[in-house]
Amino acid sequence: MITSLILASALAFVPTQVLAANNGLAITPQMGWNTWNKYGCNIDEQLILDAAKNIVSSGLKDYGYNYVIIDDCWQKSKREKNKELLPDPVKFPRGMKALVDDIHDLGLKVGIYSSAGTLTCGGHIASLGYEETDAKTWAKWGMDYLKYDNCYNQGQSGTPKLSYDRYKVMSDALNKTGRPILYSLCNWGEDGPWNFASTIGNSWRMSGDIYDNFNRPDPACPCETYDCLLPGFRCSVMNIINKAVAVGQKARSGGWNDLDMLEVGNGGMSHEEYRLHYSMWAALKSPLLLGNDVTNMTSETKEIIMNKEVIAVNQDSEYSPAIRMWVKGDQQMFSGNLANNTQVVILLNADDKAAKMTATWDDIWFYSQPHVDASKSIEVRDLWKKQSLGNFTDRISLDVPAHGVRMVKFMDSAQSS
Amino acid sequence: MITSLILASALAFVPTQVLAANNGLAITPQMGWNTWNKYGCNIDEQLILDAAKNIVSSGLKDYGYNYVIIDDCWQKSKREKNKELLPDPVKFPRGMKALVDDIHDLGLKVGIYSSAGTLTCGGHIASLGYEETDAKTWAKWGMDYLKYDNCYNQGQSGTPKLSYDRYKVMSDALNKTGRPILYSLCNWGEDGPWNFASTIGNSWRMSGDIYDNFNRPDPACPCETYDCLLPGFRCSVMNIINKAVAVGQKARSGGWNDLDMLEVGNGGMSHEEYRLHYSMWAALKSPLLLGNDVTNMTSETKEIIMNKEVIAVNQDSEYSPAIRMWVKGDQQMFSGNLANNTQVVILLNADDKAAKMTATWDDIWFYSQPHVDASKSIEVRDLWKKQSLGNFTDRISLDVPAHGVRMVKFMDSAQSS
Amino acid sequence: MITSLILASALAFVPTQVLAANNGLAITPQMGWNTWNKYGCNIDEQLILDAAKNIVSSGLKDYGYNYVIIDDCWQKSKREKNKELLPDPVKFPRGMKALVDDIHDLGLKVGIYSSAGTLTCGGHIASLGYEETDAKTWAKWGMDYLKYDNCYNQGQSGTPKLSYDRYKVMSDALNKTGRPILYSLCNWGEDGPWNFASTIGNSWRMSGDIYDNFNRPDPACPCETYDCLLPGFRCSVMNIINKAVAVGQKARSGGWNDLDMLEVGNGGMSHEEYRLHYSMWAALKSPLLLGNDVTNMTSETKEIIMNKEVIAVNQDSEYSPAIRMWVKGDQQMFSGNLANNTQVVILLNADDKAAKMTATWDDIWFYSQPHVDASKSIEVRDLWKKQSLGNFTDRISLDVPAHGVRMVKFMDSAQSS
Amino acid sequence: MITSLILASALAFVPTQVLAANNGLAITPQMGWNTWNKYGCNIDEQLILDAAKNIVSSGLKDYGYNYVIIDDCWQKSKREKNKELLPDPVKFPRGMKALVDDIHDLGLKVGIYSSAGTLTCGGHIASLGYEETDAKTWAKWGMDYLKYDNCYNQGQSGTPKLSYDRYKVMSDALNKTGRPILYSLCNWGEDGPWNFASTIGNSWRMSGDIYDNFNRPDPACPCETYDCLLPGFRCSVMNIINKAVAVGQKARSGGWNDLDMLEVGNGGMSHEEYRLHYSMWAALKSPLLLGNDVTNMTSETKEIIMNKEVIAVNQDSEYSPAIRMWVKGDQQMFSGNLANNTQVVILLNADDKAAKMTATWDDIWFYSQPHVDASKSIEVRDLWKKQSLGNFTDRISLDVPAHGVRMVKFMDSAQSS
Repeated sequence: MITSLILASALAFVPTQVLAANNGLAITPQMGWNTWNKYGCNIDEQLILDAAKNIVSSGLKDYGYNYVIIDDCWQKSKREKNKELLPDPVKFPRGMKALVDDIHDLGLKVGIYSSAGTLTCGGHIASLGYEETDAKTWAKWGMDYLKYDNCYNQGQSGTPKLSYDRYKVMSDALNKTGRPILYSLCNWGEDGPWNFASTIGNSWRMSGDIYDNFNRPDPACPCETYDCLLPGFRCSVMNIINKAVAVGQKARSGGWNDLDMLEVGNGGMSHEEYRLHYSMWAALKSPLLLGNDVTNMTSETKEIIMNKEVIAVNQDSEYSPAIRMWVKGDQQMFSGNLANNTQVVILLNADDKAAKMTATWDDIWFYSQPHVDASKSIEVRDLWKKQSLGNFTDRISLDVPAHGVRMVKFMDSAQSS
Repeated sequence: MITSLILASALAFVPTQVLAANNGLAITPQMGWNTWNKYGCNIDEQLILDAAKNIVSSGLKDYGYNYVIIDDCWQKSKREKNKELLPDPVKFPRGMKALVDDIHDLGLKVGIYSSAGTLTCGGHIASLGYEETDAKTWAKWGMDYLKYDNCYNQGQSGTPKLSYDRYKVMSDALNKTGRPILYSLCNWGEDGPWNFASTIGNSWRMSGDIYDNFNRPDPACPCETYDCLLPGFRCSVMNIINKAVAVGQKARSGGWNDLDMLEVGNGGMSHEEYRLHYSMWAALKSPLLLGNDVTNMTSETKEIIMNKEVIAVNQDSEYSPAIRMWVKGDQQMFSGNLANNTQVVILLNADDKAAKMTATWDDIWFYSQPHVDASKSIEVRDLWKKQSLGNFTDRISLDVPAHGVRMVKFMDSAQSS
Repeated sequence: MITSLILASALAFVPTQVLAANNGLAITPQMGWNTWNKYGCNIDEQLILDAAKNIVSSGLKDYGYNYVIIDDCWQKSKREKNKELLPDPVKFPRGMKALVDDIHDLGLKVGIYSSAGTLTCGGHIASLGYEETDAKTWAKWGMDYLKYDNCYNQGQSGTPKLSYDRYKVMSDALNKTGRPILYSLCNWGEDGPWNFASTIGNSWRMSGDIYDNFNRPDPACPCETYDCLLPGFRCSVMNIINKAVAVGQKARSGGWNDLDMLEVGNGGMSHEEYRLHYSMWAALKSPLLLGNDVTNMTSETKEIIMNKEVIAVNQDSEYSPAIRMWVKGDQQMFSGNLANNTQVVILLNADDKAAKMTATWDDIWFYSQPHVDASKSIEVRDLWKKQSLGNFTDRISLDVPAHGVRMVKFMDSAQSS
Repeated sequence: MITSLILASALAFVPTQVLAANNGLAITPQMGWNTWNKYGCNIDEQLILDAAKNIVSSGLKDYGYNYVIIDDCWQKSKREKNKELLPDPVKFPRGMKALVDDIHDLGLKVGIYSSAGTLTCGGHIASLGYEETDAKTWAKWGMDYLKYDNCYNQGQSGTPKLSYDRYKVMSDALNKTGRPILYSLCNWGEDGPWNFASTIGNSWRMSGDIYDNFNRPDPACPCETYDCLLPGFRCSVMNIINKAVAVGQKARSGGWNDLDMLEVGNGGMSHEEYRLHYSMWAALKSPLLLGNDVTNMTSETKEIIMNKEVIAVNQDSEYSPAIRMWVKGDQQMFSGNLANNTQVVILLNADDKAAKMTATWDDIWFYSQPHVDASKSIEVRDLWKKQSLGNFTDRISLDVPAHGVRMVKFMDSAQSS
């Protein structure tokens, strides 16, 4: 018998594994570490290798963080005569392949960065017009991942077609190498990649660049919604969340909304703010790409990024981003389907004061209306306290810290048959 | 002698039957039943045939519901070697033609679904690049109707030209088959189909997808007007109505604004809300496509979808969508020309409380100003109560339930000569 | 010595007669009469010839109204075998040339209508793809004017380039005929014709269609500013004025912003409202195209459309649209340079109550700052009362009726040397 | 060791000298004088030569103003038979080369003006379609600079690609001449030149035209943010500043946001307003192009445009536009990195009343968080008073005049290691 709950998700967009770039990658959102948020252009072989080793030794690898991604500024200043793009010989004296081999030997995968323009955002040589050459080079080096940026694109944006056509060239080039390379588009949400990118890439940035701040408005990130002619940068965590809610349901297995790399551990936010940041990235099914110094982490940072139960929400086999069920001033409630009839719920309090927040069964399972049984008693588990809060009926009320979340898992569904 | 009333409509856009896709179909808005709202992907031959039989046995057919439309998820997972697209052999073991024949034998017509993209919204094989092949196949099966969606369109949107060119290919392909196939565009209002689609199709969706709710805001349907870069889904009935008012007058015989399929009977709204929903779809000349389980209908559902007088408003030979004459907070008044000098008026109360609402002759026939005779006594008939309310002069005041409408017909015009 | 005043206008956009379509027409905004606003599709030879005769006999011709424009619905339902487009033989039994000759014999010029689409807005055969054929036909008939609409344009809009390219084809075709034909673009402001049309046409509509109402909001005209994806129709006079202010200064000799045809005399507005309507169209340098029944005019209508001094503002050789100098709630003040160092000032009161309004020398000559002499005594003439109001210094305060204007001419400038 | 401060700027966009038009020009924002703001079309050889001589004799040249730019209206009315575009023989009787030689002999460089359209904004012959011919001509004359406008562009705008492609033709043509010619795009911010122009030009206008006013709204400049379909003209100083903040960080060495030419000395603003205007143009790294009569300057004007320390902020080797750190009603605070670990801070008060304003170390060095040492004592120098204000700790509070700024330099950084 067909139930409304199944239909509720069916009616939106059906997660189907045949979609995306057809490379079989990113069945769940990718996890890993990227050089940029902490080190920017100041990278070299040793720094990256040290990070990779620490990802293993710290246990991060066991939590699923398996991509080590070399962001901008790895490039030599000119292409070779054969058009090949080599790494900066000072930063990478052994070339790229030796480093990739070393990281592979650690059981990790490796990612690289370029831009669908003439130059990268950092002003280095980029790949527009050289897609096949560069894809071949990266495959030769053993790369497993490409982050592909949007700077200096010669004005080739402004309609979905201009952006799609430009990004598809690299998708085709990567597929042609024969090597499975996760393709991460980074065009900041321009021209709606949630619509055009899911058949050519595994994830797409949906906003301007994150910065390490909870909710500060910044003129460089002028938009407050998905509809944005100037995605910009210095977008706060709350700014990105408020943009992501409109496009959340465009994600599916193999193609994810990328809310940008994590700032947890970089010092610009409080512990509660970082917890909120990580919770929301996990529940909205963003790739979870660490951006901190993994060779030197506080226990607070580790507590956040090494929470198995929260990571499990992100990697859940239902592939279903949490949905914002309501906004009441500075408070928001999110609910997301998880496998085995369980449900994740986040009570988010962006206010400067702590608050008691309530989620009712009717709101949590709203899309199963009219088949919600408010009298059903369900066990609720706190994913950050890592303990059961007991059984509840009809509603749950929790104290939520200022600039913080309570993230809980419902061990059963209130949907009635 | 030329009267102002004739001019009032003449000045806007003149309904002309030579327009639209030149296929002679949808002279009035199409009526029928579609699998999606209730069953989503969970469809098969038996379910559809059962529905078709019930459409006949319940009497729905006699009310004009004559298209049985098979929405997404009917497809096999791959095209044949000759590029043909066949149905899923498990769901449709006899193939599609046998089913179509059976439905035709019931005196009904049959519709099919695909997308102007590489995949359907449900992730199945779609028709972009295969328009002639697929149109030929559908004609061969005896299809009478195509709903043509917008997912995975390779970024071919963003200007009216990109959308028009893409949808015109299928229009031409359908015409080329020689079989009259009603062409229902479903691009969610992107790039203004009310402007570009009327010469190539019989109807065009003008908003994101409906869901079975009266007025709940939802982040997946972020726009409140026709001007929308992200049509989305989970758009409430009031959200769609408020978008439709701007483009209502773009409809004409042979080419209609499609407000999406009906949710009447699916359980997410109250009886009054469903009545409002159906009244507005009828008066705005949307196609009336049932989306409920027609094998198991309550009397309340039947009362709404089997109201001959309301259906007659939708199918009226004046072809004139009702116009929103005013908005006062949560209250709206609509007035529409009907044949034989009669007029439909809807008093809509979206407020949570019942209200007395008044419509004056001056407002109802506003576009006939200055030739309105407020002293004229006119008989007013209640289309839901199915009885005359008596004669009125100058104005009519009616109690309108919360989240409800009063839908009345004026048996004469207050326009003076 | 170069003065600031000269610079003030120089700095904006310099009126230069070499611009526009290079056809030497519309040196000042065109004046005339058009069939549409009053008669819509109900036109024929006799009606038009009667109107033309009355334009002469009533004296309208002497006031400058010299174009008789045949709007939509003149066409036969099919093109001839040679692709030629002929007039409806019932409405125009003698063909078009005979009628044109008759009107020419009256000393008037003649205009015709088509659309840069496959069909006209009224559903008749239009000229997209047949530009040279149709231009040749119209030249053969002796046409002096083309109004070229935007319906059924096959999605060829959405960037200035798509609109420009489409409208330029007809511009070239008209020029190629060798006959000077005033080219009036009617694309409702889509894609910014104030930017792209001035080298190819003599005027361009800058908003959706007018209707005969002062300030009623209407869902069919959903925008309140120039920035509009759905120009629509049923735009009120105040709606159009508030859109026009942003683009006023884009007009120049040979290329004018067209605020749409006049409604004066059609009955939907009060005398004061019509006076306001006409005053603003004149001062903003819109074409002045009558839309009323010229065979049967009240003295009130004649008083408005036969005011030589107001018409002189429109036809002034400074070619300078009045500028909105300030808005204070429902009140607005406009000031425009006229020849011979004179100035037109309009005090507009859109409020429902009469008001005393004041314009200071500093505000009227604001763009001459800091060279304004507030102590200068200047004679002020009331253009509607047709009398001098005497001399004023520093400021003028006038009683302005509700929904009305005071339109005055300053006989000298307060600009100091 | 990598510090957060370095990262803070690294994370945004890295200034790299290899970018821009690759012509090696505009390493710092260009400085000079332009004929337009004061003289409009009323220019001739003598006027320009007089100005050039006065730029030398007044000492302006020594302050860095080294480009003399001939704006619109220098052209002959027709191209020669060989397509060459010559100067108006009345205004420039000796031709252009003789004048350029004379100005070169004064140790100054020379600029010229045209439009990427068929006509210039003043209605003269422009360069679209004649790019190579005109670039060659200008190189032959010895031109060092091109200001390239956007009027009459045949609708070739509306996507970044249309604008980029059009402006790139001239970039290529200039480069092909072999002569280094600074390329100043003037497309008023259409289609986001901050994104597409930095690889083809040295500066790009980012708004509609300035006029000599502090903050008056004007219908001809209808937008308040960077997102603008009608850039227009008569944009006030505050209007331009409020648009510039969103795109400030898109500038880099060799490619600058151009806030339009200066109005200092033209009489429409108070001394404090002009000081604010100049301070902000300097700190936001706009080109500093004088627009006043340089043959007749008041001491107040000289005080502003000949302030070495303010000019040094503009020409600083860190190439870093000041960032708006906060807005509080009419008050704004800007902070910008300067070379040698120094910092410029502007307290801007757009209110009509003077105010005491405070900037904290935390706000000034916000992007160095969490590494800001509020207890650090730093010397603060007032750049307009040209004196030290002494040492401060944690915060500085200053009296800021109405419509004015305080512009100070911090001689050290509060960033902790």
